[in-house]
Amino acid sequence: MVKRVSQRRSKILALAGGVGGAKLAHGLAQLLPPPDLTIVVNTGDDFQHFGLHISPDLDTVCYTLAGLANPATGWGREAESWTVMEAVSLLGGPLWFQLGDRDLATHLERTRRLKEGQSLSEITRHFCQAWGLLPDVLPMSDDPLSTMVHTPQGVLPFQEYFVHLRCEPQVTGFHFEGLEQARPAPGVLPAIQQASAVVVCPSNPWVSIAPILELPGLKPALQGRPVVAVSPIIAGQAVKGPAAKMYRELGIQPAAAAVAAHYGSLLDGGLLSGFVIDRQDAAQAQAIAATGLAVLVTQTLMLDAAGRRELARKVLEFVNELPAPGVVIS
Amino acid sequence: MVKRVSQRRSKILALAGGVGGAKLAHGLAQLLPPPDLTIVVNTGDDFQHFGLHISPDLDTVCYTLAGLANPATGWGREAESWTVMEAVSLLGGPLWFQLGDRDLATHLERTRRLKEGQSLSEITRHFCQAWGLLPDVLPMSDDPLSTMVHTPQGVLPFQEYFVHLRCEPQVTGFHFEGLEQARPAPGVLPAIQQASAVVVCPSNPWVSIAPILELPGLKPALQGRPVVAVSPIIAGQAVKGPAAKMYRELGIQPAAAAVAAHYGSLLDGGLLSGFVIDRQDAAQAQAIAATGLAVLVTQTLMLDAAGRRELARKVLEFVNELPAPGVVIS
Repeated sequence: MVKRVSQRRSKILALAGGVGGAKLAHGLAQLLPPPDLTIVVNTGDDFQHFGLHISPDLDTVCYTLAGLANPATGWGREAESWTVMEAVSLLGGPLWFQLGDRDLATHLERTRRLKEGQSLSEITRHFCQAWGLLPDVLPMSDDPLSTMVHTPQGVLPFQEYFVHLRCEPQVTGFHFEGLEQARPAPGVLPAIQQASAVVVCPSNPWVSIAPILELPGLKPALQGRPVVAVSPIIAGQAVKGPAAKMYRELGIQPAAAAVAAHYGSLLDGGLLSGFVIDRQDAAQAQAIAATGLAVLVTQTLMLDAAGRRELARKVLEFVNELPAPGVVIS
Repeated sequence: MVKRVSQRRSKILALAGGVGGAKLAHGLAQLLPPPDLTIVVNTGDDFQHFGLHISPDLDTVCYTLAGLANPATGWGREAESWTVMEAVSLLGGPLWFQLGDRDLATHLERTRRLKEGQSLSEITRHFCQAWGLLPDVLPMSDDPLSTMVHTPQGVLPFQEYFVHLRCEPQVTGFHFEGLEQARPAPGVLPAIQQASAVVVCPSNPWVSIAPILELPGLKPALQGRPVVAVSPIIAGQAVKGPAAKMYRELGIQPAAAAVAAHYGSLLDGGLLSGFVIDRQDAAQAQAIAATGLAVLVTQTLMLDAAGRRELARKVLEFVNELPAPGVVIS
């Protein structure tokens, strides 16, 4: 039996990347009244393809929250058709980044509005209204910031590494092009200041969460409010995506404890208050707690909508009554 | 009974804009062996929409020749679906320029290749191969040249006037932005030099044919070979589009004879050798002939594929054995 979270009024700010982050954001959106949830989404994956501006993480989060996402793939839209890509294929065009017909409309209209001078955050707000999506979804920045992946083959733009080369190249490092000039999007810093707690969703720490946290001005704004992160690594593996492979290639054994240490470092040691790990990793809980964190051990794998809601409920209970360093099992 | 045209080997260069030009080009393509036909297409209508490079006349000509065109609309593709535009509509995007799903693939892949550094003529050649289209179709230029329409509301880009405002503004003049810097696309001047005759298809003289003829270097190349134009005005009206309205608004009574005089002027008086008018305009034939032209009077309205072929056959007979100034009725 869990307590009703909505009895306690608290504004939550969630940081999210793609599929895993979108799932927990969806769970949070099912529990919190819309004004009490703001989701800040990674845009380091954004890229240009066919002349269109594509924001894969923003779209995954919005489609997921609006109930438009394809549950089978985790990206793109459900009930999608592929007429355009089939005709592109006949012209010998590239098929490595699959663009469904309905999904394409998002990229076309986003690109049109950007060229008209609207900002990515204005456009995202407009799209969310059109899709009937109530919580605030904000791109982390309106400025161009491109996650670049260092590999023995050279420095690759993220989608080139992630989708085109299927994460096959060995990762030797990352950098975020445009980081120095980028600013958090309008609304991001105020939303952090109004938040009673910050939830780092189970997204890839290297390429989904780090770009957000590294934005100039972001970490100072986090000072003084609890930050709780959910491990995207369960039993040494990523539920989806290359996070575990990246840890290995960078010389780190992928494990929940390694992610906790990574976030501790990304958050300058003192900003991370709590960490959420899966029951399969319970053996690591004491060691993580010993680094000064409150640790929640629960089921973090979200198998369906109920699982998203359930994890969201437990994370909210945890952050709302954040205990002293130690282990909580729920 | 008409003679078989293919008995006489002659290379034909056709100049074309959109729908009417595409129909006669299709008729010519049904009669001439592919190496003997080159079609040079207006690109003054090209524009950017949703960040994509759209070449309406090139697409109309290619779709028509490839049997992919929508016979009902004259633009776009047959058996088309509208999934993307419906989703764009839900996002509040502009619907004034209708982009079918299959048609969109053309614009996406064209834009991608242009951004990769390929030229419009290289891309067009590639698309023609992909669509199984045999005659050479060349954009008039690889350089940007934009037909601008002068109106009391200001100077409008062509598609803004033509599609968005449905040709409603009064026309006071035209200019071609970029004309001085534009050059005929590679292949255009050699094709003119190899042609035994040039056929100006029944397209809008003001906005489809003039931009081609005005290209630097084009008229000198036409010297010494017969140029025959087909009137797009029949019985004082344009079969499709605003040509007749433009003549009226510019103070000229729309008539086949007015088009002949217009082409005479566009072609510096001496370059036009022959003119083709519809039977409905037979009364004007003598007056046109009196200006020094050979005039063919025939049915120029192309109601179906057979009509296109029939007009093409008569035009080819006319240009191949071009008579002295006077009237031929066929």
